Amino acid sequence: MSLTLYIGNKNYSSWSFRPWLAMKATNIPFEEVFIPIYTDAKDKQRLLDVSPAGKVPILVDGEVTVWDSIAIIEYLAEKFPQARLWPQDSALRAHARAISAEMHGGFGSLRRECGMNIHRPIRAKALSEEARENIARVQEIWTDCCKRYGEAGPFLFGTFSAADAMYAPVVHRFRTYDIEVTPPVRAYMDTMLVHPAFAQWTAEALAETLMIERFEAD
Amino acid sequence: MSLTLYIGNKNYSSWSFRPWLAMKATNIPFEEVFIPIYTDAKDKQRLLDVSPAGKVPILVDGEVTVWDSIAIIEYLAEKFPQARLWPQDSALRAHARAISAEMHGGFGSLRRECGMNIHRPIRAKALSEEARENIARVQEIWTDCCKRYGEAGPFLFGTFSAADAMYAPVVHRFRTYDIEVTPPVRAYMDTMLVHPAFAQWTAEALAETLMIERFEAD
Repeated sequence: MSLTLYIGNKNYSSWSFRPWLAMKATNIPFEEVFIPIYTDAKDKQRLLDVSPAGKVPILVDGEVTVWDSIAIIEYLAEKFPQARLWPQDSALRAHARAISAEMHGGFGSLRRECGMNIHRPIRAKALSEEARENIARVQEIWTDCCKRYGEAGPFLFGTFSAADAMYAPVVHRFRTYDIEVTPPVRAYMDTMLVHPAFAQWTAEALAETLMIERFEAD
Repeated sequence: MSLTLYIGNKNYSSWSFRPWLAMKATNIPFEEVFIPIYTDAKDKQRLLDVSPAGKVPILVDGEVTVWDSIAIIEYLAEKFPQARLWPQDSALRAHARAISAEMHGGFGSLRRECGMNIHRPIRAKALSEEARENIARVQEIWTDCCKRYGEAGPFLFGTFSAADAMYAPVVHRFRTYDIEVTPPVRAYMDTMLVHPAFAQWTAEALAETLMIERFEAD
């Protein structure tokens, strides 16, 4: 058994970060292959050679190729039940999947205006009303989870789950764009920032030297 | 056991269509509750009273509230294994989830420029390059599935699955915006258009009289 996860630049590729963190944090062994994103037709073709969707992340497990963060996570959750990527309780699992899907398909303004850029100097920027609504909703989601399940641990559903992985890039966004957050949200961000796997991704992102100019403008 | 699915206008709410179709097509019993979308603060509050995300679709199963189409489908797939919402084979299931996730998080230009509007008179409109790329990718996905699994039946994975439900609104989009499609894609669309549950949604959409002016402009 040997899994390969194809990922983009650690500094910028928020979608790559999610399954990578889910796997590292739960000790699922894998090899990672880096394909630079937003570069040239050659790299785009390398991606298309692995997956017809042409986007990172991509998980290859022998004959099986799975693309898209949430589909990769479901695949891993089935294959590695001991990793407990989703909560064991079915009501909690439904909740974890609902907020993960909400992240997967939503928060477009936040994603557009506050792209993940881990090496960006911390500073606030003017945001649209929609982005501010996105930020309020994320804080509501995190606060609600920490209130409900906080006795079981400091992550969204007590112990680490795929939901934490799905929201991980937002932790860096809130940090680098200097978003004003409530104390419970700050506590959750701190929990994530010092999680060993999260910190490893951060360190490796900061060590990258590839720059994408258009993501460095703000 | 009694499930309630909260949905928006059948004519416009593509996200509502997906889990509704998944349930109807696999004979999962449920009650549906209609909350008009894009109307006023009162309806918005009705939605927020059911789910904090404030968006349809929402599934309520006793104490459990699940929102977002893909999370609802995963919940149902676990609760009703006999519905076979996902293919039984794990490689096919991974494929079905990958294309479902690709639909869930992508094809933004197609969704924006060709909103689902079932009663719209059939006519072409000028589309951006990105929307045309989205259309080509959807056709590639459908054609690839029908080529691989076509011997098992006329749906994407042979028999009806959640992946068909996830792409169902695109069938109406291709129809109403008069998108030029290949013969295999046309055959798949015809399969979907005459599926009894699909046709029921279509008929009920056409019977609606609520109009949302800004979706009627093109």
